[in-house]
Amino acid sequence: MTLDDFRITSSKKFSLANFDPGSKLLSSGDKQTDEERLAALSDHLDAQQDVFYAEHRRKLLVILQGMDTSGKDGTVRSVFRSFDPLGIRVVGFKAPTPDELAHDFLWRVHAQVPRVGEIVMFNRSHYEDVLITRVHGWIDEAECERRYKQIRAFESLLTETGTTIVKCFLHLSKDEQKARLEARIADPQKHWKFDVQDLAERKYWGKYQEAYEAAIAATATPASPWYIVPADSKIHRNLMVAEIMADVFRQLKPEYPPPKPELAKVKVE
Amino acid sequence: MTLDDFRITSSKKFSLANFDPGSKLLSSGDKQTDEERLAALSDHLDAQQDVFYAEHRRKLLVILQGMDTSGKDGTVRSVFRSFDPLGIRVVGFKAPTPDELAHDFLWRVHAQVPRVGEIVMFNRSHYEDVLITRVHGWIDEAECERRYKQIRAFESLLTETGTTIVKCFLHLSKDEQKARLEARIADPQKHWKFDVQDLAERKYWGKYQEAYEAAIAATATPASPWYIVPADSKIHRNLMVAEIMADVFRQLKPEYPPPKPELAKVKVE
Repeated sequence: MTLDDFRITSSKKFSLANFDPGSKLLSSGDKQTDEERLAALSDHLDAQQDVFYAEHRRKLLVILQGMDTSGKDGTVRSVFRSFDPLGIRVVGFKAPTPDELAHDFLWRVHAQVPRVGEIVMFNRSHYEDVLITRVHGWIDEAECERRYKQIRAFESLLTETGTTIVKCFLHLSKDEQKARLEARIADPQKHWKFDVQDLAERKYWGKYQEAYEAAIAATATPASPWYIVPADSKIHRNLMVAEIMADVFRQLKPEYPPPKPELAKVKVE
Repeated sequence: MTLDDFRITSSKKFSLANFDPGSKLLSSGDKQTDEERLAALSDHLDAQQDVFYAEHRRKLLVILQGMDTSGKDGTVRSVFRSFDPLGIRVVGFKAPTPDELAHDFLWRVHAQVPRVGEIVMFNRSHYEDVLITRVHGWIDEAECERRYKQIRAFESLLTETGTTIVKCFLHLSKDEQKARLEARIADPQKHWKFDVQDLAERKYWGKYQEAYEAAIAATATPASPWYIVPADSKIHRNLMVAEIMADVFRQLKPEYPPPKPELAKVKVE
């Protein structure tokens, strides 16, 4: 299996059951080797970001989705830590405010898309509007289908106007979530991260998996693909997201703008 | 001399001429020792940021100002690179757009101030509205005085509502700017950073120094101080900004929220 097998570009033959959250495709099996590989990738991505910014021509949007504790924050922290803080913008989407609810669901999202030369990461996104809303029956199937279509049109607008979109589903098992929630409870310094409400959402595990499967199938296209990232192993999750990013830059081949010949005669007084 | 001598909290006896851009107060004289010190400070600041975020109670705003090539970007990159990208937001202010110009000059700035638990860095700021505008005579002295007053009132609002403000003037010499501009011209890969317009602004060097001196004097208060950061040496500039930040956290003493006793009985199903 290669990275390509984890890239979903259509609804054809897609089933979440075909992906094992415990898979470690990219791991060497040795933690230190993996961490050295991640550090090297991270430095490489940092250098690519610099060129991407200088090029000032295209835009890059990375969307992270996944169940509670699947490691959305951890991915940002580990894969993008060595980035120049000027080169990346992270946007977290929480429950919408009254002002946001007074608009269409893509309004607050559109306001945050990357500009030329910019890399933006969405920590949760407009996909919540076809996930939690669907799981709890706040929207019906017809509305959900309408939103899938609106999302496809919105993402087409972005890709047709120079944005590369990378959507990652951090695929966690129910058992691993249990272990991570228990670890949070056991560490008083992590209690601030713990909301008893998270346990209530956990009861809808099966429904969430179905909603993810349906949303991914309905919105995966060649121009706006989803990646299924096995996330039970943190180092594997980080390595895979880093490899996906490296692959994206291999396709984009960012380049520094050409030198300005007129500067040859410039003298600084 | 200590850090306190570089902190300006009133207009009294303040003169930019008393500060040498080439000063290396905090440098050990050995580059490697300085870099190790900076790395240690940077790790310490990163850990403090984590607690500050968890505490979710106060706000921190760092304003970076300085002439072209004084190292505003470089400071962010060097001092804050080890930060969790989730823990810091950098906002760059460029020439205002027509929409921004259709509002008061503090409108776009207010929209970007930090929320609780957040650290925001302004790369340039509302101070441009009393600097470049003043140097070129786009506003007269009466309007400039009005803006100083408006800035003081705006910053009071922020500090009275839980924001710590740290304003850094990266103090560069005219000779060092010449060397840096020449280095950019000599490196074709850096031409994209070079705007011939920058040379035109350089002709107003003296006027800019006067405008900075006046703006700093008019807006330095105990709650919203300015720091004069000698910036001819990059490592010294970085060390000093890192030390200022460490000092700020020593005053703030952020703390993790208390554990939640009710979690003791919670069981993850």
